[in-house]
Amino acid sequence: MAAGLGKRMHSSIPKVLHEAGGRPILFHILHTIKSALPGAPVAIIVGHGRELVERAVRGCKAFPDMNLEFVQQCEQLGTGHAVKCAMESKWGSAVISQSLPVLVMPGDSPLVTGALVAELAAPMKRGDVMRLLTCEVDDPHGYGRIARRGKHGPVLRIVEENEATAREKEIREVAVSMYLFRPAFLNASLARLSNKNNKREYYLTDLVSQAVRSKKKIDVLKWHSAAELMGVNDPYELSVAARLLNGRKLRALAVEGVRFVDPCCTIVDADVEIEEDVTVWPGAILQGWTRIGRGAVIGPRVVLKDVTVGPGANIKAGTVAEKSTIGERAQIGPYAHLRPDSVVGNEAKIGNFVELKKATIGAKTSVAHLSYVGDAELGERVNIGCGFITCNFDGRVIDGERKHKSIIEDDVFMGSDCQIVAPIRIGKGAYVASGSTITENVEADSLAIARTRQVTKPGYAKKLRGEAS
Amino acid sequence: MAAGLGKRMHSSIPKVLHEAGGRPILFHILHTIKSALPGAPVAIIVGHGRELVERAVRGCKAFPDMNLEFVQQCEQLGTGHAVKCAMESKWGSAVISQSLPVLVMPGDSPLVTGALVAELAAPMKRGDVMRLLTCEVDDPHGYGRIARRGKHGPVLRIVEENEATAREKEIREVAVSMYLFRPAFLNASLARLSNKNNKREYYLTDLVSQAVRSKKKIDVLKWHSAAELMGVNDPYELSVAARLLNGRKLRALAVEGVRFVDPCCTIVDADVEIEEDVTVWPGAILQGWTRIGRGAVIGPRVVLKDVTVGPGANIKAGTVAEKSTIGERAQIGPYAHLRPDSVVGNEAKIGNFVELKKATIGAKTSVAHLSYVGDAELGERVNIGCGFITCNFDGRVIDGERKHKSIIEDDVFMGSDCQIVAPIRIGKGAYVASGSTITENVEADSLAIARTRQVTKPGYAKKLRGEAS
Amino acid sequence: MAAGLGKRMHSSIPKVLHEAGGRPILFHILHTIKSALPGAPVAIIVGHGRELVERAVRGCKAFPDMNLEFVQQCEQLGTGHAVKCAMESKWGSAVISQSLPVLVMPGDSPLVTGALVAELAAPMKRGDVMRLLTCEVDDPHGYGRIARRGKHGPVLRIVEENEATAREKEIREVAVSMYLFRPAFLNASLARLSNKNNKREYYLTDLVSQAVRSKKKIDVLKWHSAAELMGVNDPYELSVAARLLNGRKLRALAVEGVRFVDPCCTIVDADVEIEEDVTVWPGAILQGWTRIGRGAVIGPRVVLKDVTVGPGANIKAGTVAEKSTIGERAQIGPYAHLRPDSVVGNEAKIGNFVELKKATIGAKTSVAHLSYVGDAELGERVNIGCGFITCNFDGRVIDGERKHKSIIEDDVFMGSDCQIVAPIRIGKGAYVASGSTITENVEADSLAIARTRQVTKPGYAKKLRGEAS
Repeated sequence: MAAGLGKRMHSSIPKVLHEAGGRPILFHILHTIKSALPGAPVAIIVGHGRELVERAVRGCKAFPDMNLEFVQQCEQLGTGHAVKCAMESKWGSAVISQSLPVLVMPGDSPLVTGALVAELAAPMKRGDVMRLLTCEVDDPHGYGRIARRGKHGPVLRIVEENEATAREKEIREVAVSMYLFRPAFLNASLARLSNKNNKREYYLTDLVSQAVRSKKKIDVLKWHSAAELMGVNDPYELSVAARLLNGRKLRALAVEGVRFVDPCCTIVDADVEIEEDVTVWPGAILQGWTRIGRGAVIGPRVVLKDVTVGPGANIKAGTVAEKSTIGERAQIGPYAHLRPDSVVGNEAKIGNFVELKKATIGAKTSVAHLSYVGDAELGERVNIGCGFITCNFDGRVIDGERKHKSIIEDDVFMGSDCQIVAPIRIGKGAYVASGSTITENVEADSLAIARTRQVTKPGYAKKLRGEAS
Repeated sequence: MAAGLGKRMHSSIPKVLHEAGGRPILFHILHTIKSALPGAPVAIIVGHGRELVERAVRGCKAFPDMNLEFVQQCEQLGTGHAVKCAMESKWGSAVISQSLPVLVMPGDSPLVTGALVAELAAPMKRGDVMRLLTCEVDDPHGYGRIARRGKHGPVLRIVEENEATAREKEIREVAVSMYLFRPAFLNASLARLSNKNNKREYYLTDLVSQAVRSKKKIDVLKWHSAAELMGVNDPYELSVAARLLNGRKLRALAVEGVRFVDPCCTIVDADVEIEEDVTVWPGAILQGWTRIGRGAVIGPRVVLKDVTVGPGANIKAGTVAEKSTIGERAQIGPYAHLRPDSVVGNEAKIGNFVELKKATIGAKTSVAHLSYVGDAELGERVNIGCGFITCNFDGRVIDGERKHKSIIEDDVFMGSDCQIVAPIRIGKGAYVASGSTITENVEADSLAIARTRQVTKPGYAKKLRGEAS
Repeated sequence: MAAGLGKRMHSSIPKVLHEAGGRPILFHILHTIKSALPGAPVAIIVGHGRELVERAVRGCKAFPDMNLEFVQQCEQLGTGHAVKCAMESKWGSAVISQSLPVLVMPGDSPLVTGALVAELAAPMKRGDVMRLLTCEVDDPHGYGRIARRGKHGPVLRIVEENEATAREKEIREVAVSMYLFRPAFLNASLARLSNKNNKREYYLTDLVSQAVRSKKKIDVLKWHSAAELMGVNDPYELSVAARLLNGRKLRALAVEGVRFVDPCCTIVDADVEIEEDVTVWPGAILQGWTRIGRGAVIGPRVVLKDVTVGPGANIKAGTVAEKSTIGERAQIGPYAHLRPDSVVGNEAKIGNFVELKKATIGAKTSVAHLSYVGDAELGERVNIGCGFITCNFDGRVIDGERKHKSIIEDDVFMGSDCQIVAPIRIGKGAYVASGSTITENVEADSLAIARTRQVTKPGYAKKLRGEAS
């Protein structure tokens, strides 16, 4: 069920697309179902922001091998109506014809584990028409309460918050919108659902009382961990869920050999992979499809999104990188900024206050300080002095390109405070003197220089200071 | 009561002026009283650092509409003496003449909520001469214990830590220096207070036993949340209070539609306002009177103090800004530094390792990399290349100003590695070639260039390397 | 006992050398023993990575005054075997000859406090042959369980996890590898130890049943804090231990007068010292032997390793420094980078995006923006403009040095965008014009300039834009 608007999210994005752990919250439950029930036919009930949800799911590389269908719920008439839409769809017909049990899960509960899905979807005993998941919570406000005959007797019905009496409101065992149904019972019962209640909605929870009235048996699975069942309804709950998901991810990685110096201050998205013997300093944020190779060090406050870091590389404090590749034993930062499409070779060095953008840096090349390298290819063993700038934009468009390309071949020595005006090529082994603005290609092994000879005026500084000379 | 020295703070600043949540701790209780008891006459009892406290309160824009008076306690002779000073002041006379109940609150309890103040200040029953706030705590050490007749009987007296017997020390119900008094009872009782105790102090707590001795009735309000009553006595407690205040602030904002990716690592001062649909990344520190417009994104580790951020702006990782204004949909950072009096226009871009200081940046203007723009006005649609510097200081003072002004008009294209020596004006649409040091004004639509032609010496690099040429 | 491999650490470093709180975990217990039992002869039992462990301990400046010996355990045959190796060593002979009680502690429990060591090592009653430390834990899995006669009767034996029956596994009182032994009993019992168990190891825990069988008395010390006894076996436990150590350190400092704005996000290594009235902002990481002087401010995300900060200095956001010294009231950052061997004088200013390396900066000197100062000595009251670069490397080696030295004497004014090509000296009071590349020494009070005169071409910018001129 992923059709809700999520008004309390205060956002134009559909609720289930809000991210926790770097994934839309809907994706967490899809991942869990994928691993717990491989191959099962899954219907995603969409409504608000339908196209956005479909596009997001279709666009994620994790789900193409899932048996997924989208079912549209045009009006939001309650959970019972949502499931009815699914059962009346092509997907529903297939399920009924094969008599497959129907697992109903909310799309906004990203903490559900595979163990829960497996237990909830396990075969029912003969005679049971449904299995109901419940949980004891400290504060049951807002949940459907489980009304039982006596204190521990069989379940009678689920009472929604706005239908509950003061006494019922004190019940702490609640329903959490997760069920398993026999398809025939589900179909028949949905047909009989009524919306004669305060909210004029069709409640899926009413199927419990239907089963009771028709003397059908209900299996109850009372889950031990309320945290796992947590739904996300506002940004506060989203942030709590994100913290819990992050804690799980970090613990799993740490047990497998990743050293987090302070786990409390580190964020690792769900899809990130880190090899063993990696050290991650506090404040690191590892996002998207980032991959970290064995023995690498990720310094404090490093932010990596969709970055591949080679084994033994050292990414120092405050480095920010996106959609880039960093070679083995490369040294990056502190405070380097790798914009998309940067490739740094093995044992290369990118130092402090250096910006790369669409730049390929050869092995053992050094860009150690305060430089901007954009739209450029640097060879191997190149030494780039401090204050270097690729002038990749001159305000004009050439051959349809706004930005022009710089090529620096192997073994070039570039002095400090040099600018090269693209398009340009600096040949292998060339030497560019400090302080030069280079506008023409430099042949291999040449020296290029473009600066003015120094003039010194003795005593003139005194004059500038207004002192007697 | 805000007269204490706070020796355990290890600081020359009076205790109540130490900050938590970006406000002096005294201000929190003032804010709470302001909203819970609007218009009530408030006396702030000051002693140590009196002038500092008065100046701070008078200087805060939140309190001018409060009915505030300062009462001086010249010597620190105990809480009873402090209240006596207040009652003997002009404020006290007015209170007595109007027979207003007197609420006594400590100035160092920043977590007190409006709900507590409202309940404590609610009208007393006829016959009650005072209301006493108590609380059960896990570790009562240091608090005045509530001695009762029997276990749950009426209160007999409050026993200070250093007067308590071993048995009394085990009592976990404690007093927390918050009371409501009938003014007549208060006045009469204060006159009878004695300092015959270990510390030679006048204890306000003794009013309880006075009431008991004279068979007056005491109402006891036992508060549920010990955390809310927490006093601050050393920097450790200050930091704990700050965490709790921050947690409250974040939760309140999140429920209203602000997305904190990881609330644990984010700090938002009490006076900051954030609109809905804003995303705040971990490590952000939002201080002072900062305002964030709808839909903006505040990246990881961004530090903003007294900054206004327009709707839809994107402030990227590590940006630090103070007393500045950022326009709608502007892009700032990562690692930009906006010093005071910077104004960035709508859709402008300030990129990595760029420093602004007293700089106005026009709409759609771009200063994308490694630049310093100080004492400058930039027009709209200006393009500033990498490595740009406003040379605003030449070691001399002109017309009384140490720093000189740079003006760059609309649509200027500034190449990379340019410096402009202020005072200077670059006219509309002018073009400055890369690598130029500009010392004279440039007319509109002109090209300015100040660099040396490149000379290339074939094979010379080999010589430099000591290879056979 | 520090001989274990620590396979679950997924690392080539021996387990006890992994760091928590900036110290190898072994060092924590050594520090604790040093202060609780000054002068006691200590044997460190080493095995895996023996040389590394010995070198680390010998190399630490905290331990030279300890009475330390290393005992080699060549094969890892269990805890009993480890202690046997120690008793058979020269250290063991001395201990036996002096009849000193033998305290056995694991090397991987960094949270043990001095109070615990003192109680565990306190004199035993006559007749007791050993003292056993136990603790109640929530999850006893993996620990040796304390089997007693009846529920609270005397201890019978310790049952290792893999030898325990289902019933024994439910016991929550566990042993934690900490003991005190009479040396004669220890020696005699070790001789009788057998390895006839599932793991073919000699268990020290078997000494309990030996004592019971021979009707010797065992003293049991049941410790109240399980957290303190925590062992480190994988990177997750290492990170938990590090958090707890950090929390202790911060609390101790805060009570003594250090203000941590948010203690949750701050890391201070065990050996760091901070004076009172210092403010530390969130995200600061203070490492190694860092010292912070009174009244200094450490801004958000500052990373200092082995740095001395003078009183009243202000280290602003994101500054990273290592092996450097910062003078009184100096202003550093935001985002300054001090590489090793930097010395910043009193009241000097190092601003944003400035890198120092082997640089000495005189008092009241300012390097305020985007500069690289390497292998340099700057005098007092020097003003360095934005974009300054010491060109300390020209690709050649001179007199065996790759990097050459720059000297800037007192009162020099260096304009913006200047480079000086080392080796070079700029004399006292000299003035260097903006945009100059300085290649020759500049005499005192001279003006040096090396730039091209500006040429302006009216209307030419229109041409560049392709507009009709």
